[in-house]
Amino acid sequence: MSETSNVDLVIRGGIVLPMDDRSAFEGDVAIKGGEIVALGADLDFAASEEIDASGRVVLPGLVNAHTHECMERGWFEDLPFDVWLNDHALPKDRAYTPADQRAAALLNQAESIVSGVTTFVDMFRFPGEAASVAVDSGLRAVIAPQLIDSTPGVGETLETNLAFFEEWHGAGDGRVSAWFGPHAPYSCSGEALAAVGEAARARGTGIATHLAESRWEDSSIREKSGLSPAAYLDQVLGLGADVLVAHAVHVDVADIQLLADRDVAVAHCPTSNMKLGNGIAPIPELLEAGIRVGIGTDSIMTNNNLDLFEEMRQAALVAKLRREDPAVLPAWTILEMATIRGAEALGLADKIGTLEVGKRADLILIDLDRPHLWPLHRSESGFGNLVEHLVYSARASDVVGTVVDGQVLMADSTLRTLDLVEIRRVVQQQGDDLLRRAGAEAVVLERLGRRQL
Amino acid sequence: MSETSNVDLVIRGGIVLPMDDRSAFEGDVAIKGGEIVALGADLDFAASEEIDASGRVVLPGLVNAHTHECMERGWFEDLPFDVWLNDHALPKDRAYTPADQRAAALLNQAESIVSGVTTFVDMFRFPGEAASVAVDSGLRAVIAPQLIDSTPGVGETLETNLAFFEEWHGAGDGRVSAWFGPHAPYSCSGEALAAVGEAARARGTGIATHLAESRWEDSSIREKSGLSPAAYLDQVLGLGADVLVAHAVHVDVADIQLLADRDVAVAHCPTSNMKLGNGIAPIPELLEAGIRVGIGTDSIMTNNNLDLFEEMRQAALVAKLRREDPAVLPAWTILEMATIRGAEALGLADKIGTLEVGKRADLILIDLDRPHLWPLHRSESGFGNLVEHLVYSARASDVVGTVVDGQVLMADSTLRTLDLVEIRRVVQQQGDDLLRRAGAEAVVLERLGRRQL
Repeated sequence: MSETSNVDLVIRGGIVLPMDDRSAFEGDVAIKGGEIVALGADLDFAASEEIDASGRVVLPGLVNAHTHECMERGWFEDLPFDVWLNDHALPKDRAYTPADQRAAALLNQAESIVSGVTTFVDMFRFPGEAASVAVDSGLRAVIAPQLIDSTPGVGETLETNLAFFEEWHGAGDGRVSAWFGPHAPYSCSGEALAAVGEAARARGTGIATHLAESRWEDSSIREKSGLSPAAYLDQVLGLGADVLVAHAVHVDVADIQLLADRDVAVAHCPTSNMKLGNGIAPIPELLEAGIRVGIGTDSIMTNNNLDLFEEMRQAALVAKLRREDPAVLPAWTILEMATIRGAEALGLADKIGTLEVGKRADLILIDLDRPHLWPLHRSESGFGNLVEHLVYSARASDVVGTVVDGQVLMADSTLRTLDLVEIRRVVQQQGDDLLRRAGAEAVVLERLGRRQL
Repeated sequence: MSETSNVDLVIRGGIVLPMDDRSAFEGDVAIKGGEIVALGADLDFAASEEIDASGRVVLPGLVNAHTHECMERGWFEDLPFDVWLNDHALPKDRAYTPADQRAAALLNQAESIVSGVTTFVDMFRFPGEAASVAVDSGLRAVIAPQLIDSTPGVGETLETNLAFFEEWHGAGDGRVSAWFGPHAPYSCSGEALAAVGEAARARGTGIATHLAESRWEDSSIREKSGLSPAAYLDQVLGLGADVLVAHAVHVDVADIQLLADRDVAVAHCPTSNMKLGNGIAPIPELLEAGIRVGIGTDSIMTNNNLDLFEEMRQAALVAKLRREDPAVLPAWTILEMATIRGAEALGLADKIGTLEVGKRADLILIDLDRPHLWPLHRSESGFGNLVEHLVYSARASDVVGTVVDGQVLMADSTLRTLDLVEIRRVVQQQGDDLLRRAGAEAVVLERLGRRQL
């Protein structure tokens, strides 16, 4: 580039890892109108803002393919699954209010920005609150209202989902996508699933759901329908490329073939699957079948944070454990799952997931000046252990800058669109209030009592 | 305390979690001569130094029960176990020099201090270098030279171990303990193991080793001896309360009973066991048998960091996964394993592991002003999700202060005993040199080539 021209933002002198077929190089990224307009060494642009990325990795922003924006971190822990679900999680969902959900969305989106997540898929209550916060936070969001009709009052309905779609789809200059979010084959009736499928397809938007998470789900769906959860969902909802399923732990060879045939995408949530004692999804087999797989943290109830670096590592580790093979799911594939493969799973690969001219500028800066990222191999051929550092050693707190759609959401570890001091106050107050209102304080106090003995 | 008296250090106004039978309280910790002399609210002491701990948790320093101080982070990744061991790890060990080991010790100890690890067990080469760095860094160290006689030139010998003991045991005002470190039942001859047992017992010091890590070890020891690895080690080395074994993945009911009968301690390294595809140690069963169990990161070759918070979480998650039971190994037990149970495993529970008057002052400060640790429950009865936050959401970078033996090694995230800028320079240079000298650069370059395709 010899000609100086004006752009909005230049990220200067970083180690750029575009996550396409190019290897990492030292150079700049130029952004105009929210779009990447150039990548290379010593770009000759005049920019409204320059960010110094020296000593930092410039990576596509991470895609959190499955979460629920909530506040119940560390409340219901170390409990048998049925007690957790029926005695605590569902009654608490019934107590949720829009004010709770606004606080939860602020907490989750602030944590996402500081953790390097630029796009997230959210399934929970009062989706308008999450969408409204996303418009302000600057994040890219896929929001699927969590529709439940088996237990009245704990989830959203087809009517609220339709109203949400009308009001919010495409908001924030297209950053917010409104999807449909039937909770699971066991918590939605066949009629509800069919109606959701019809409504989503009439509008050309996506469907996020949970599938094959637990042994209990598997046996109860088989008992009810004579089919596996995947086959049942195909029968009642209709599986297709517009469906993103979280978990896919208990799937057999026929299920995997079905998911591949229908081009269904999968959100892998290894920490949540471990913490609830549900098992390990057969990710290498899903990838071999050609299925699009992203990585999700699941909610802070079952994770308990939104650290997608940790989740990448967990995805690699559980695969090696399950196969008893240290070579399976190497670091490069894992990093793809958190970026471009995640974008593919959400149907957004034409816009995000790699750093390429013409794509939206969703990227993060990772500081390498941390002891746990030393030493770094560097040669004429490239950086020999950079990807391995990002997958096997880095953590969310190494992220120091976050850009979405060309807007700087965090620079030098300082948030620009959200006020952390105010969010902490709101979350603490609203969280305490929800804890008491939902009758959940007894749970933490009882645990405290046992610990003191 | 109504009378003002002089102490060396007071940690003021933190949320103190002593990890004995008391629950967390807001207050101070007073330290004199390296010892905790008082804990409570509003202590009336004049101190040479005061550290403001408001908004921070004051926790016993973490015990890393098993590592190898090395520099090979992200070099040999995603490889079959035999290729990793025979083609890369062992040849590289042969290339190690004392200068390499000094750089490795600086890197590992700096990372440990910033990560909240106050005591570590190290097994590797040129132990005098590690001990010398520990004297300077201020950390508490158990150093067991890694003795290997099956493959000459890749490990230490009984002679170097004896010389190390004579020179370094008790150094750093008693912070450095010299142990014996026979590598494993398969890499040491029966004669070497017997000689080590005799030498260690004659000196009243401990023995660190690896046991029952892989299926391959299990079958090869059974083939050689007709015994399980645990029974074989009991026969040749003699198991006892002075033995700390890392891994204990492939142990059956009889092995567990043997380890319990002999009062052997175990260092649990879940990330390493997953990453190498070795399996999950039966920790709940070991604890139920009364065995002392601590948590170790293992080396940065197989982890790839020294984040004991992440390792705590991993210990909880793999247990829940293995048992398909979310209630097993609750957060409190896990936090004990990283503190007091770890101290017990090292035979140091009379000195460290809890915050009690009369114990050595090894403690860390954890900053709660991070979105991933919100909201925090607080009531008259105590902090209802504090322990859960520390185990299920916190990370090494939340540690902002580290004190060992009453000496402040880090305050407000700034190291006092080590120079990070200089360490980065030394580690980068020495690491690059070792990579080339050991003929290992081809491995990272070959991986890079494959990734570009």
